[in-house]
Amino acid sequence: MKFNEEQVISEISSIFSPLNLKNPRVIIGIGDDAAVIATDQHSVITTDMAIEDVHFKREWSNAYEIGSKITVANLADVYAMGADPLYLVVALTLTGNEEMEWIKALAQGIADTASKSDAVVVGGDLSRAEKIMISITAVGTSRLHITRSGARVGDSIYVSALPGWSRAGFEIISRNLPESPAFAHALSQFKSPQLDPVVMRSFKSAHSLCDVSDSLMVQAEQMSKASLVSLEIDTKKIEKCDGFADLAAVAETIGCDVWDLILGGGEDHVLLATGANLPGICIGRVVTGRGVKVLDMKKAPESWRHFN
Amino acid sequence: MKFNEEQVISEISSIFSPLNLKNPRVIIGIGDDAAVIATDQHSVITTDMAIEDVHFKREWSNAYEIGSKITVANLADVYAMGADPLYLVVALTLTGNEEMEWIKALAQGIADTASKSDAVVVGGDLSRAEKIMISITAVGTSRLHITRSGARVGDSIYVSALPGWSRAGFEIISRNLPESPAFAHALSQFKSPQLDPVVMRSFKSAHSLCDVSDSLMVQAEQMSKASLVSLEIDTKKIEKCDGFADLAAVAETIGCDVWDLILGGGEDHVLLATGANLPGICIGRVVTGRGVKVLDMKKAPESWRHFN
Repeated sequence: MKFNEEQVISEISSIFSPLNLKNPRVIIGIGDDAAVIATDQHSVITTDMAIEDVHFKREWSNAYEIGSKITVANLADVYAMGADPLYLVVALTLTGNEEMEWIKALAQGIADTASKSDAVVVGGDLSRAEKIMISITAVGTSRLHITRSGARVGDSIYVSALPGWSRAGFEIISRNLPESPAFAHALSQFKSPQLDPVVMRSFKSAHSLCDVSDSLMVQAEQMSKASLVSLEIDTKKIEKCDGFADLAAVAETIGCDVWDLILGGGEDHVLLATGANLPGICIGRVVTGRGVKVLDMKKAPESWRHFN
Repeated sequence: MKFNEEQVISEISSIFSPLNLKNPRVIIGIGDDAAVIATDQHSVITTDMAIEDVHFKREWSNAYEIGSKITVANLADVYAMGADPLYLVVALTLTGNEEMEWIKALAQGIADTASKSDAVVVGGDLSRAEKIMISITAVGTSRLHITRSGARVGDSIYVSALPGWSRAGFEIISRNLPESPAFAHALSQFKSPQLDPVVMRSFKSAHSLCDVSDSLMVQAEQMSKASLVSLEIDTKKIEKCDGFADLAAVAETIGCDVWDLILGGGEDHVLLATGANLPGICIGRVVTGRGVKVLDMKKAPESWRHFN
C-alpha cells in the first residue's frame, strides 16, 4: 500500500471530524470504540454498499462521484421511510493502489452529500481488499414512518421525479457512445445522482412510500404486494410530464425503449408514493386487485413483461 | 451463482425476521427501505467488517464461527463505550460458490451471537463480489458513555480477561500445528471468541474503557494519549492471574513469547478499563506522565518494543 492504515485514517478523519465537532447532536465523534449520538424515540436504520466493478467502475466515475452516489443511495432509503437522515458510518476497503487524492475525494463526496441532507459521518472501518468496497449505514430520526404497505384504493400514485435517467446514463457509458450535450443529464444521473432534501422531505403525508432504486416496476410490485392493492400506472400521464420528451429523445438516439428506461431502469433514487395531493408527478392510481397494471402500453418492454 | 439473490435474502430473512417480530423495540423490521427501531436519548454506533483471506479463511473457520466472530467484534465495541447493543445491520457479499447451508450457518452465527447480548439484526444488504465480506454496524443504547480519555492518576488498570489467547490460536492455525487438547481454548478463542454480556456490562463504573481488539499495548497507548496519563502495567500481577500458566505453557509449546501474545496479540475483545474496584484482572495503575510502561519485563518482545 502506498500509505499505511494510520495515514489513510488520519486523512479521512480530517475530512469528517470537523463536521462532528460542529454538530451538537454528535456527543462523541470519530476516534473511540463507537460514536455517541443523540437519538429520538424512533430511529430508522438502513445499509447499502457499492462494490468496484459490480456497482461502479473507476474508469467511469471519479472518486467524488462514487462516494456521493453510495451516500445518496443510503440517504434515499431513509427519506423513503418518511424519516430524516442524521448519521452515517462508512466501512471502506482499499486495494492499496489508490492515490491519497483519490481517497480524499471519495471521503469528500460522502461528506458533502451527507451535509446537504444535514447528516454527518460519525465512524467507520478501513481494511485492505482486492476491490474497493464502500458499505454505508445510515441512521435517521423518524417521528412518523411510512412503509410500503399503506397504499389504499383511491390513492393517487406519484414519483418525485421521472425515473429512467440513470439507466439511460448506464446504457450510454457501457456502450461507450460518443459524448453529446444531449447525454449530459443522463450521464450525471448515472455517475452521481443528486438528491434534493426539500423534495425528499415533501412526501411526509404519503400513505405509502419507497424509493425506486430497483426500478419503478419492481418497487410498484412490492408496494402492491405489501398493501394488498393493485397499482395502475398510466403511461399517458407520464408522457405529459416535464423531461419525458428529453428522455424519449435520448432513448431513441441510443436505441432503447423509453418505457424500458422508465419502468425497468434502476438506481434513480426517486421516491414512489401513494396518497392525495402529493408533489412530484402523478402517474396513476391505486385500485382493487393485485399487481401492477400499465395502461396504454403499445408494446411491453422486455424488462418488465414478466410482471403482467 | 447457485442461488439467486431473492432466494438468499429469503433464507437469511427467515433466520432474522422472527427475532424482529419477537422484539417490541423493532417497530418495522427487515423488508422495507429501512428498519424503524425504538431508541433512547443517546445511542452509540460502530462498524466493523471481516473480509475473506484478510480477517478469516474458510478453511480455518466454519461459517457459524465467522458470523459469530465479526458480530462479537461489533458488540464488544458497543460494550467498550459502557453501552448496551440493541440493533445490527449486516452488509454481506457472496462469491456465488457458497452452499446455502454455509450461508444459513453464517446468518445463524450472527443471529445467535447477537441474541446472547439481546441484540437483533434489523436489516442488511446483499451483493456479489470476488470475496466474502461481512460488514456489520451495531447500534446500542447509552445512558452513560465511557471513552478512552477518562483515565485518572491513581486509577487501577483492569482487563476483563487475560488477552493473548486469540493470537495464540492464530499462531497455532497459521503454522498448521498438529491438534492437541492443550490448544483447544486458544483455537476456539481465535475462531469464535465468546463474549459474556454479564462480564461486559460489569465495567459501567470505569473511568476509562476500550476493547483491546488491536492488542493491549496499542490500546493502552491510545488510552494514555487520550487521557494525558501514563499506564503502568505490572507483569507480576498478570503472572498471578488465572490462566496465565496455561497460556505460558501454550506459548512455550508453540515457541512464542507469552508477553508477545498478551501485550502484542489482538482480536481478543477483552475490555481494558481504569477505575477503582472493578471486576476482571488488575494489571497495573495509572500514573503521571505519558505512554505505557511495562514493569519487570526481562526482555521486551519484538511486537511492542517501539512503544518504550
